[in-house]
Amino acid sequence: MTGKRSSMDGGRRDEFGMIAQYFAPLARLVGGAFEADPLNLIDDAALLAGREGQQLVLTKDMLVAGVHFFADDAPEFIAKKMLRVNLSDLAGMGAKPIAYMLGFGVPAEIDEGWIAAFASGLAEDQDMFGLGLLGGDSVAVPNDMTLSLTAIGSVEKGKVLKRSAAKAGDDIWVSGTIGDAALGLLAHQDKIEDQSGVLLQRYLLPEPRCALGETLQGLAHAAMDISDGLIADLGHMASASGLAMELDANSVPLSAATQTVIEGDPALLDVALTGGDDYELAFTAAPANRAMIEEAAHSAGVAVTRIGACSEGAGVQIRGHSDPQLLLGRSGYQHF
Amino acid sequence: MTGKRSSMDGGRRDEFGMIAQYFAPLARLVGGAFEADPLNLIDDAALLAGREGQQLVLTKDMLVAGVHFFADDAPEFIAKKMLRVNLSDLAGMGAKPIAYMLGFGVPAEIDEGWIAAFASGLAEDQDMFGLGLLGGDSVAVPNDMTLSLTAIGSVEKGKVLKRSAAKAGDDIWVSGTIGDAALGLLAHQDKIEDQSGVLLQRYLLPEPRCALGETLQGLAHAAMDISDGLIADLGHMASASGLAMELDANSVPLSAATQTVIEGDPALLDVALTGGDDYELAFTAAPANRAMIEEAAHSAGVAVTRIGACSEGAGVQIRGHSDPQLLLGRSGYQHF
Repeated sequence: MTGKRSSMDGGRRDEFGMIAQYFAPLARLVGGAFEADPLNLIDDAALLAGREGQQLVLTKDMLVAGVHFFADDAPEFIAKKMLRVNLSDLAGMGAKPIAYMLGFGVPAEIDEGWIAAFASGLAEDQDMFGLGLLGGDSVAVPNDMTLSLTAIGSVEKGKVLKRSAAKAGDDIWVSGTIGDAALGLLAHQDKIEDQSGVLLQRYLLPEPRCALGETLQGLAHAAMDISDGLIADLGHMASASGLAMELDANSVPLSAATQTVIEGDPALLDVALTGGDDYELAFTAAPANRAMIEEAAHSAGVAVTRIGACSEGAGVQIRGHSDPQLLLGRSGYQHF
Repeated sequence: MTGKRSSMDGGRRDEFGMIAQYFAPLARLVGGAFEADPLNLIDDAALLAGREGQQLVLTKDMLVAGVHFFADDAPEFIAKKMLRVNLSDLAGMGAKPIAYMLGFGVPAEIDEGWIAAFASGLAEDQDMFGLGLLGGDSVAVPNDMTLSLTAIGSVEKGKVLKRSAAKAGDDIWVSGTIGDAALGLLAHQDKIEDQSGVLLQRYLLPEPRCALGETLQGLAHAAMDISDGLIADLGHMASASGLAMELDANSVPLSAATQTVIEGDPALLDVALTGGDDYELAFTAAPANRAMIEEAAHSAGVAVTRIGACSEGAGVQIRGHSDPQLLLGRSGYQHF
């Protein structure tokens, strides 16, 4: 047992000097609506100054090797997935990323090359998504690598998108395509063939819809990112909003790669509709906003598709599927 | 492999419904300098509104069973220790606690009674330290319980206490007593006797010096919490401030329980001076402030003791000890 390690810089540098070496360059002073100051990762905490009229949006996800990723995945992909699943949560709230705090729990036998590659993955994504490392903690874990990330974004006060704000009569939309990552996981496990490699890529490297999330402020009523599977997450949204959602299974956008796999084994459609790790956005909006939403999505560089509608009532109903009850059962969502 | 669980509320409620049940009551709307809104833990993120003239202070620590605590420690103590080590970081920065994000990685076989006890420990400490649960993530881990916490506090802009701000000529102070927790760990391992139980208590349940940290704004130059051991952390402070620190080992405040143990085995003094987990504050201040600091500490309800002084130069020198080099070697701090 050792004392906690207080910060990336504190504590036993003989063990963790290499972490300071690779992570300190990721610390960024970030300006904009909020001023983030990592204090060069020297202190036990970092600073963030707020502005009137803005709200911070905070989200936290833990990822564990063997549960959320494979320990032998490329370190760059592990780093990016960890960051991106959190950015996806911010996107679902319509927030713009600012900074993140990193909990880095790795086995002592991890070598320097692994850490360098992990840090380079973070560096690339920081630049792509415009945020900086604000601080964190590194610990040596006895077994499974465990990563914990708190991501911080900002929204104009009152503009945050919540999953509880859907209204009866709203269209239900999703971004991108659904099911690729769930099938990508099967490909990763050698259970199906993924000729193009697209499905595996979608599993390893989610595309958080940050730009779309921001543009949906004022256009969408409710929004969230799809991480537990489309049907389960629609169930969460219906429940939080106190209404019913009707999903047209035939409208759900599928990639060419997913369509190919489903043609080979039609039962895999259910995996696509209920599997996790999509990190697309689901959102609802008044039908009057259809054209503006199409335009916003176009400018954000992602397709959006209407897949259903909200009504008075409760639960998720599914049309266009031979056995909706089976599908609901598979979704793992049990509160219809 | 399952998709990430997006929030305490999201995902597979058959497994984690009990967590929502016990954690949702901990979510608090917190006012004051910042307005924190956990959105009832329904969404994937929470809100925090800033105010002009205030800065947020963010810190993150991970605790792993078998490394930072024992898996069979009482769940109330595990919960409180996790919260308190983070509050101690805030105290070291002079920040007032506002809220926290919780990463809760527990083995699937953890039972409901354990979670209820864990949550009750959090509830008690939230009330004691005046902060609220803002959000987080729960995951089932295959092996070691892993807890990750991001604590958020606030300071008036420019008033934050840094470890890099010590000045030559400053006194060096510590709060409370040093070494109790390191000896408490030995007692926990049945390596020494702890007749009063005080040492074990100090190991299991740190006392973050939040009130003292806040009152030191404007009085102290540099501050930090002592988590890696007194001598190692003075080394960090000396290094960050670019000066030398001279420690008088005879001045280091020891509790009656620690004195008793050291009388029985004088070699344990070195454990007290170099062991981790104190969670006291170390700070430096101009000699002119001595009386005001004594008064501030009195009003914060904790003793403070002068244990040395800062000067031009580098590294930590130790007086009043038979073998300072041995002590420095034991501290694990290698950058003198």
